Amino acid sequence: MNVMEGNIASPAGFKAAGIHAGLKKSRKDMAMIVSECPAVSAAAFTTNRVKAAPVLYDMKILEKGCARAVVVNSGNANACTGDQGYKDCEETAAYAASRLAIAPDEVFVSSTGVIGKMLDMKKIKSGIDALSSELGYDGGSAAAEAILTTDTVKKEVCVSVNLGGKEVKIAGMAKGSGMIHPNMATMLCFITSDAAISHDVLQDLLGSTVEDTFNMISVDGDTSTNDTVIVLANGMAGNEMIEKGSDDYNAFRQAFDYVLRELAKKIVKDGEGADRFIEMTVEGASSRNDARVLARSVVSSSLVKAAFFGSDANWGRILCAMGYSGAAFSPEKVDLYYSSDAGSIQVLHSGSPLAFDETEAKKILLEKEIYVRAVLHDGCACASAWGCDLTYDYVRINGDYRS
Amino acid sequence: MNVMEGNIASPAGFKAAGIHAGLKKSRKDMAMIVSECPAVSAAAFTTNRVKAAPVLYDMKILEKGCARAVVVNSGNANACTGDQGYKDCEETAAYAASRLAIAPDEVFVSSTGVIGKMLDMKKIKSGIDALSSELGYDGGSAAAEAILTTDTVKKEVCVSVNLGGKEVKIAGMAKGSGMIHPNMATMLCFITSDAAISHDVLQDLLGSTVEDTFNMISVDGDTSTNDTVIVLANGMAGNEMIEKGSDDYNAFRQAFDYVLRELAKKIVKDGEGADRFIEMTVEGASSRNDARVLARSVVSSSLVKAAFFGSDANWGRILCAMGYSGAAFSPEKVDLYYSSDAGSIQVLHSGSPLAFDETEAKKILLEKEIYVRAVLHDGCACASAWGCDLTYDYVRINGDYRS
Repeated sequence: MNVMEGNIASPAGFKAAGIHAGLKKSRKDMAMIVSECPAVSAAAFTTNRVKAAPVLYDMKILEKGCARAVVVNSGNANACTGDQGYKDCEETAAYAASRLAIAPDEVFVSSTGVIGKMLDMKKIKSGIDALSSELGYDGGSAAAEAILTTDTVKKEVCVSVNLGGKEVKIAGMAKGSGMIHPNMATMLCFITSDAAISHDVLQDLLGSTVEDTFNMISVDGDTSTNDTVIVLANGMAGNEMIEKGSDDYNAFRQAFDYVLRELAKKIVKDGEGADRFIEMTVEGASSRNDARVLARSVVSSSLVKAAFFGSDANWGRILCAMGYSGAAFSPEKVDLYYSSDAGSIQVLHSGSPLAFDETEAKKILLEKEIYVRAVLHDGCACASAWGCDLTYDYVRINGDYRS
Repeated sequence: MNVMEGNIASPAGFKAAGIHAGLKKSRKDMAMIVSECPAVSAAAFTTNRVKAAPVLYDMKILEKGCARAVVVNSGNANACTGDQGYKDCEETAAYAASRLAIAPDEVFVSSTGVIGKMLDMKKIKSGIDALSSELGYDGGSAAAEAILTTDTVKKEVCVSVNLGGKEVKIAGMAKGSGMIHPNMATMLCFITSDAAISHDVLQDLLGSTVEDTFNMISVDGDTSTNDTVIVLANGMAGNEMIEKGSDDYNAFRQAFDYVLRELAKKIVKDGEGADRFIEMTVEGASSRNDARVLARSVVSSSLVKAAFFGSDANWGRILCAMGYSGAAFSPEKVDLYYSSDAGSIQVLHSGSPLAFDETEAKKILLEKEIYVRAVLHDGCACASAWGCDLTYDYVRINGDYRS
């Protein structure tokens, strides 16, 4: 696998664009991704019972298993908008399809922004007009910019992998779980690849990869109404069809996992108000699910997050968050370590506190990226979760009145 | 039921004391409650897999079904202290028992404070000496003061109820879920009553009442290693033994529920950094459990809590938190209301946003106690949960480095 400079339009046969349609004041607010030929599709959506209209719409589009385009807007989530919200999705897709000369059911739509407001369809349509004429092989970065809301940086990843002599690319862009403007939400991620792969294999791969990547990050524990990951794979790399279990599959899987994992980490690092990145690894668990639940519970705890904000080696809160996670482990067997670029310390051995140098601990925890490792000695399953600290800025950003 | 001035020593036959033993710098840090005759006991403990030594110890004491005394210390949680921590509980109970001339297995012990430090048994013992000589019918308030950690106010409730011509009293004291000093934790609650009631009936009643009271509050979603509720009922009111299902039972139950509910609300109102009290009521749910899960999910959401800090009528976040709770409901049928002393507004009708006066909404949400009501139209079950807003002070308090 080769990590390269690139974006959503780097895989063969993909064009993209990002423009300002007027949904937001001045920043880019609409993006489009188009494949030159029909592409296999896969997608994963929010588990929230309250699903935004585009999520409900895309769940239907996904059934076909192939698609050609994605139209995304920021500035308005089209959530809690009832029947009209759903009709607006249909109209958006139909309008884009007519401009692109493809079928309406080949178009996914995604939205992020304010909840409970109707889309301004006039702006959406003129936005689609502009996107259609701007579409290009060089439009990927503009698209990555146009899907952002409270994010402070673009999130793009691109890798290539050699499958039977053919260079296959996988690229992705994402926006984070920022909610600066009240009633805003959402993690969105779009992946393109020029690999030849079937819908079933891709969908299955996406499901298991999301489990270990996007489902292992937490900014504030709130699952939005719009969370969406959409993958398009158009086969233009000319590789042989990837069959599950083959060497090609394993190579593709590794690259695919890397792309999603990097995007997930980028989201956490750019979390609202986040000042520190925290990686929590649980090793020696009796099952993979226990390891996942334990790791996720730690990075989701407000008390743990506040302790990291204070650069405090507060292992009691970490053990406590593991304890209420519901997962199985033996507290009296836990070893716990903190590390960062500034060094490493062990704070618990077999569940008992070790004396440690507080100055050393403070130095380690003042770094921007902190790694915590709990070794359970219960089995051999492991998992990592990623989170950020809880800061004054998080409260300020999310407490600001809508205006 | 009659709500009265009173404290843990108000029910007949109970004495209490609260003193400074030196575990904390200058504030009171040890309390004792003693019944003049053997009392029926009931208790509920943290569900955290990491249980502090006194919790493990009290689980054994509870098996007997009756007890005479409780010894509580603040300043040190005796959690993550291994075998020595458990032995310290045994020693504390035995020492108190010898001073009170009762059996060691008639003494519950409770601790709250720093995690991972051994108890200073010398201070504990001289504290027990002091408590034993201070014990009195007027010692309830001193006891309520001695169990506090980051709480800013004492939490005491006392009621009386007439059972067959006898005045039966129920009183309680609690400390909140404050964690100002890193590695501190815990909600502790102690209830005394002079009612005649069996262990089985009392234990059963405690279990169901805790479900609707202490299990329906959230300050930061973290379940501590030490959470404990202990009830002692000594029968000195002279009422006829309370049988389940009788009129007396119903009257006692109502009073008991009131005491626990008021203490639970007092804990939330005094939550760390809390500036606003939020009551979330879910009505018309298809099951009581769904109603509970939905209400609790809303008061536990960081985003909802931050919105209340900003006095923002951010119904999207409330609906979102209901959506990811895992409980059943139909988003398209929800009616949602905000109210406070300043008025009331409806913001959602049948899942669709209503236009509302933002100035009016702001006025309502600037009050200190906010009531949110979601009507689901799915059935007739309801539940309430109580929480507080997420403030800069919460982050400051919990981000402060241990020092």
